[in-house]
Amino acid sequence: MWQKNEEEVKNSVFGFGEANEAFVKFFRGISYLKPLAESKEAKTAVHNVSFEPGCRNNWHKHTVPQILIAVAGEGWYQEEGKPAQKMLLGDVVIVNPNTKHWHGATKDSWFAHIAIIVGDSENTLLEPVSDKEYDKLG
Amino acid sequence: MWQKNEEEVKNSVFGFGEANEAFVKFFRGISYLKPLAESKEAKTAVHNVSFEPGCRNNWHKHTVPQILIAVAGEGWYQEEGKPAQKMLLGDVVIVNPNTKHWHGATKDSWFAHIAIIVGDSENTLLEPVSDKEYDKLG
Repeated sequence: MWQKNEEEVKNSVFGFGEANEAFVKFFRGISYLKPLAESKEAKTAVHNVSFEPGCRNNWHKHTVPQILIAVAGEGWYQEEGKPAQKMLLGDVVIVNPNTKHWHGATKDSWFAHIAIIVGDSENTLLEPVSDKEYDKLG
Repeated sequence: MWQKNEEEVKNSVFGFGEANEAFVKFFRGISYLKPLAESKEAKTAVHNVSFEPGCRNNWHKHTVPQILIAVAGEGWYQEEGKPAQKMLLGDVVIVNPNTKHWHGATKDSWFAHIAIIVGDSENTLLEPVSDKEYDKLG
């Protein structure tokens, strides 16, 4: 299948980084992690996260806010009990604390978003987004 | 004088917004504010801030972390006691709480950065960046 936006994601001004092997058990497919900035004093970490087509993380929660900023390609963001929303270049999502959600690429497109966590987060990784749920999306 | 990056800033995928009249007394020159996302529950606000060439804010502090992400043009970020650092597309700065700093455009270029504040911030606006300090920068 033709994979859209591969060059846009791999050549992003925010960088592409390395395959995120530490998190592979919490993702379906391969994601890539590029650290952009970190401050222990501000308890803040900023990464660019890229997803191959079809790649998404499990449903999960953070105890602190997360901010997602779409910077290349096409992806999805979904909160439990709400429809998935498409994320395109320029879209920004604030994930409220303790909100069950997932994010990732669309089926046929690479996707990259900046992800920002502020605070000492405890993260709870939950079940995968099933193929049945995911394949229903456009 | 030729003003670089005007189209890149005014046509940013993150939007350009309106002249920021509320803050005009804390800026030298005109800045523009485009709200991108806000959550009261997460105490988080995300804006795209654009600066005309030569525009910069006063020295100031926040009591919570701020994240700046350069998205178009050329700008400056400086913390008290440190050299100013140029901000170009893709650069990310985490401003630690209670750190005296300023940011803005270069002399001859428009500049835009996303600015994120997380937490109930008290902001302390201080003295302007003098022409003497600013004009020394490249």
